[in-house]
Amino acid sequence: MQRAAALVRRGCCPRTLGPWGRSQSSAAAEASAVLKVRPERSRRERILTLESMNPQVKAVEYAVRGPIVLKAGEIELELQRGIKKPFTEVIRANIGDAQAMGQQPITFLRQVMALCTYPNLLDSPSFPEDAKKRARRILQACGGNSLGSYSASQGVNCIREDVAAYITRRDGGVPADPDNIYLTTGASDGISTILKILVSGGGKSRTGVMIPIPQYPLYSAVISELDAIQVNYYLDEDNCWALNVNELRRAVQQAKEHCNPKVLCIINPGNPTGQVQSRKCIEDVIHFAWEEKLFLLADEVYQDNVYSSDCKFHSFKKVLYEMGPEYSSNVELASFHSTSKGYMGECGYRGGYMEVINLHPEIKGQLVKLLSVRLCPPVSGQAAMDIVVNPPVPGEESFEQFSRAHKMAPDMFYCMKLLEETGICVVPGSGFGQREGTYHFRMTILPPVEKLKTVLQKVKDFHIKFLEEYA
Amino acid sequence: MQRAAALVRRGCCPRTLGPWGRSQSSAAAEASAVLKVRPERSRRERILTLESMNPQVKAVEYAVRGPIVLKAGEIELELQRGIKKPFTEVIRANIGDAQAMGQQPITFLRQVMALCTYPNLLDSPSFPEDAKKRARRILQACGGNSLGSYSASQGVNCIREDVAAYITRRDGGVPADPDNIYLTTGASDGISTILKILVSGGGKSRTGVMIPIPQYPLYSAVISELDAIQVNYYLDEDNCWALNVNELRRAVQQAKEHCNPKVLCIINPGNPTGQVQSRKCIEDVIHFAWEEKLFLLADEVYQDNVYSSDCKFHSFKKVLYEMGPEYSSNVELASFHSTSKGYMGECGYRGGYMEVINLHPEIKGQLVKLLSVRLCPPVSGQAAMDIVVNPPVPGEESFEQFSRAHKMAPDMFYCMKLLEETGICVVPGSGFGQREGTYHFRMTILPPVEKLKTVLQKVKDFHIKFLEEYA
Ligand SMILES: Cc1ncc(COP(=O)(O)O)c(C=O)c1O
Ligand SMILES: Cc1ncc(COP(=O)(O)O)c(C=O)c1O
Repeated sequence: MQRAAALVRRGCCPRTLGPWGRSQSSAAAEASAVLKVRPERSRRERILTLESMNPQVKAVEYAVRGPIVLKAGEIELELQRGIKKPFTEVIRANIGDAQAMGQQPITFLRQVMALCTYPNLLDSPSFPEDAKKRARRILQACGGNSLGSYSASQGVNCIREDVAAYITRRDGGVPADPDNIYLTTGASDGISTILKILVSGGGKSRTGVMIPIPQYPLYSAVISELDAIQVNYYLDEDNCWALNVNELRRAVQQAKEHCNPKVLCIINPGNPTGQVQSRKCIEDVIHFAWEEKLFLLADEVYQDNVYSSDCKFHSFKKVLYEMGPEYSSNVELASFHSTSKGYMGECGYRGGYMEVINLHPEIKGQLVKLLSVRLCPPVSGQAAMDIVVNPPVPGEESFEQFSRAHKMAPDMFYCMKLLEETGICVVPGSGFGQREGTYHFRMTILPPVEKLKTVLQKVKDFHIKFLEEYA
Repeated sequence: MQRAAALVRRGCCPRTLGPWGRSQSSAAAEASAVLKVRPERSRRERILTLESMNPQVKAVEYAVRGPIVLKAGEIELELQRGIKKPFTEVIRANIGDAQAMGQQPITFLRQVMALCTYPNLLDSPSFPEDAKKRARRILQACGGNSLGSYSASQGVNCIREDVAAYITRRDGGVPADPDNIYLTTGASDGISTILKILVSGGGKSRTGVMIPIPQYPLYSAVISELDAIQVNYYLDEDNCWALNVNELRRAVQQAKEHCNPKVLCIINPGNPTGQVQSRKCIEDVIHFAWEEKLFLLADEVYQDNVYSSDCKFHSFKKVLYEMGPEYSSNVELASFHSTSKGYMGECGYRGGYMEVINLHPEIKGQLVKLLSVRLCPPVSGQAAMDIVVNPPVPGEESFEQFSRAHKMAPDMFYCMKLLEETGICVVPGSGFGQREGTYHFRMTILPPVEKLKTVLQKVKDFHIKFLEEYA
C-alpha cells in the first residue's frame, strides 16, 4: 500500500487557500466626524503582502490541509448539491483523527470532564463514584475550584503529580519528578516551545535540528519559523523504516560544515512510518547524542499505538536511566505525550505534557517564563490529560496526520486523481519528505474493517488503471 | 490608589524560579546492554544553558508570576504551617482571574459545555431546552459530532458564523464575514500569530511594533521573541491615561530613524490603565494608521468591562467602516476578543477570536498555514467562545493581568514589603512599563466589596508607614 509508482509531473499548482471576504467594502457608511484630511478613494497597496511578510513563515511548508484536502471539501459540497460522481461519499483517510472517524470517546473520561465542567452534576446519582472522586480532586487543585481559572503556567500541580506517577509506572519504577513535568497545549505546543528555547547563533553556528525523514511536518515548520537549520536523517525504508545510527553519523558530520547541530529529534513510534524502535536502537541513539553533545527530543505520542506483538515500546527516559549515571545525569532529554493519540484519541481538548531530564535550573526558569507569556494550557485539556494517564485500559488506535503540499509533485497528482475518481482522501508522501525519486502516499487505517475492505479494493483498481494510463 | 511614591532601591534580587528536580540521578540503574564506549562518570557541561539558549527568549521580560507572586506562594505555605504573620490570608489582587477570586461561572455556559462534553446528558430532564439546542448545534458542526476531534485550523464553521453575527449586532449592523474570523487559543494566541506573520526585515528595516506604555506584557514578550523592534508610545497619565495622537506621531518619527514601523497595537479598553477610548480618539488613530501605513492591532478583550456611565466602547472595526470607503477598504486591521474577560471570565478554557479586515488573500492562506502547524485551538474553548458571543446578558467585571519583574525596582520593593506586611499581593507597575522616575502598582478590584474595604484600609496604613520609613 505504501509505495505508489513514479508519476508524470503536471504543471498545474492549486494554491488559493480560501475565499477573500467580499462583503467588506459594501457595508461602509460615511464618517460622521470631519477629519483633517479626507483622502481620495482608491485601493492602496497593502502593508502585509507575500513580499513584506515574515520570510520564515512564508518558507514554512506545512502539509496540513493543502490542495488535496481543500479539493475533498469541494467534492463533498458537490455531492451535497447532487452532482453525480463515481462514488457517494468522501472517505477521509488523510488525517488520523479517531473521533472524527466515528470512534466513540471513552465514557469514563467524558464523565469526569462533564463533572468538572458543571459541578452541579456531582450530586447526580447517574454518575459513578470513581468519576466523581477524580473530578473533585481536579477541581480542588484549580483556582476557585473551577476549570474557568487560569492554572499555573506549568500546569495544575496535582495533574503533574499524576503524570509523574504514570511515567514511573510505565517505566517500571524509574522515578519521575512532577517538577520536571510541563503540561502543554497538545504535544505540538511542547515541541515548539522547547525548540524555541534551543535555537541560537548566526551563520555557521546557527542551531541545527536533526529530524527523521519522513517526518511529522510540525518539525520542519517550526524549524523554518525559528530560522534554524533542518538536518535530515533518512529512515531506512528497505528495513521497515528503521533508524540507523550510521545514518545519524553521516548527517551530523555533513551538517557540521554549515551549522551547529545541537538537537536530535526522534519520533518513536514513528509517524508516518509506524516503526517502533528496539531497545538496542534507543541505546545507540542515546550514546550517539551523548557523544555528539546533542539535546534529545523524544516524540512519544504514539506510545500506546503499538499493535504488532513483535514490538514493544521503550521510553527514552527509561533506557537513559538504565544506561547508568554517566548518561542519566548528563544527557538532556525532553519527551512528549498527548491526549490526541492512544486509545483516547481526544484531539480536540489539546492536552499534552513534556517531561524534561537534566535541564539546567536556570533554563527551567526561562521555560516557565516563556510559557507564562501565553498564560497556561487549556485547563480542560489538562483535565483530559489527567484521565489519560490514569485508567490503565489498553488502547485502540488513533494515528493521525495533517498534510499539505504546495507543488503538484507526482504523488500529489496521484492523490488528486485518486480523490477525484474514487472519493478516497489520502496524503501525498512528499508532505513528509522522501528520498529523491521515490513516491509514496500515506493513508490512515481508522475506517471500520468493512469500509476498509471497500477502500482497499478501490485503491487497487485505481492504481492499476492509473499505471496503464501514465506509465 | 495608582501612584506609589518613589522608593529606595535595594540590592536583593530574587531570581530562582523553581526547584531543580533532585530525584534524577538517584534512580539510575545499570545498563543491561554492553555499549561500545563506557564513559567515565562525571557531570558534563550542559548543552542548553543561559549562554547557549535563544537570546531573544532570554531577553523576554515577562512580568507574569515573578518574585512577588512566588513570595505570595511561600507565605501561603508558611501560614498553612501555622507560622504567625500580621495577617491570616494572602489576598491575590495581582491577577484578574475572576473565577479564581470566587466568581461563579455562568450556569448556562457550563450547562452547554457539559452537554457537549458528555452528550448522554442530552436525554437528561435537568437541563434546559435552550442549552440542549446550543449543544446540539455545536456538536453537529464538530468532526464525529465530538469535542474530541480536531477542528478546522481556523475554527469550527458554525462558531465562526456565530461570532460574525455577534460582531454585526455589536456594531449596529456593520457586517462581519465568518471568513474573516479565526478562532484562537485565547487572545494571546491570535496576537502572537499575527505579529509573527508581520515581522520581517533586517537592520534599519526591521519591523517596528508600536505599543502603549504601560502595556500588557504579552506584547513586549512576543516582540522580543520575534526579534522585532519595540516602539513605545506613552499614554497620558495626567489625562486619565488617554491616547494622544501627537504622542503616536512623535514615537513613529523617532522610530523611523532605526527601524521600519509597520504595526500599531492598541489596547482598548486599556489594561492596566482601564481607560476607554472616545470615538474621536479612535478616528484619529485610524487616520494616523492610514497616513503612516501601519497595520492596526486592536486588543478589545475588555470590551464588556466598561463600568463608567461616561464611557462607551466603540470597536475599531465599526469606526473604520463609518469613516468611509477610503479607510474601510484600505486600512488593515486585526481585532481580538477572548472568553477570559467580560462577564464570563472563562480564562481556563482559552477561547478567543481574531477578526481581520482587508487582509490580502494570499496572506489569509499563509495565516491558515501557520495556524495549521499547531493543528487547531482547543475545541472546548471554541465552544465556550460560542456561548460568550451569544447570550446578551450584560456584563460583570473580570479584569486581569499577569506580571513578573526581574529586578528589584523601587515599585517591586514596595510591593514585596506590602505583601510581607499585609498579605496583599499586587503587581509592580514596572512590569507594564513606565515613564522613567514614576512608580506605580496595579491591583485588581475583584475581591468582594467588604474584603475590598479592608484591603484599601490596609494599603493606606501601609503606605503611610512606608513613606515615614523610606521617604
Ligand atoms: C508525531 C506527532 N507528534 C506530535 C503531534 C501533535 O499532536 P497534538 O498536538 O495533538 O498533541 C502529532 C499529531 O498528529 C504527531 O503525529
Ligand atoms: C490586554 C490583554 N490582552 C490579551 C490578554 C490575553 O487573554 P487570553 O489569552 O486569556 O484571551 C489579556 C489577559 O489578561 C489582556 O489583559
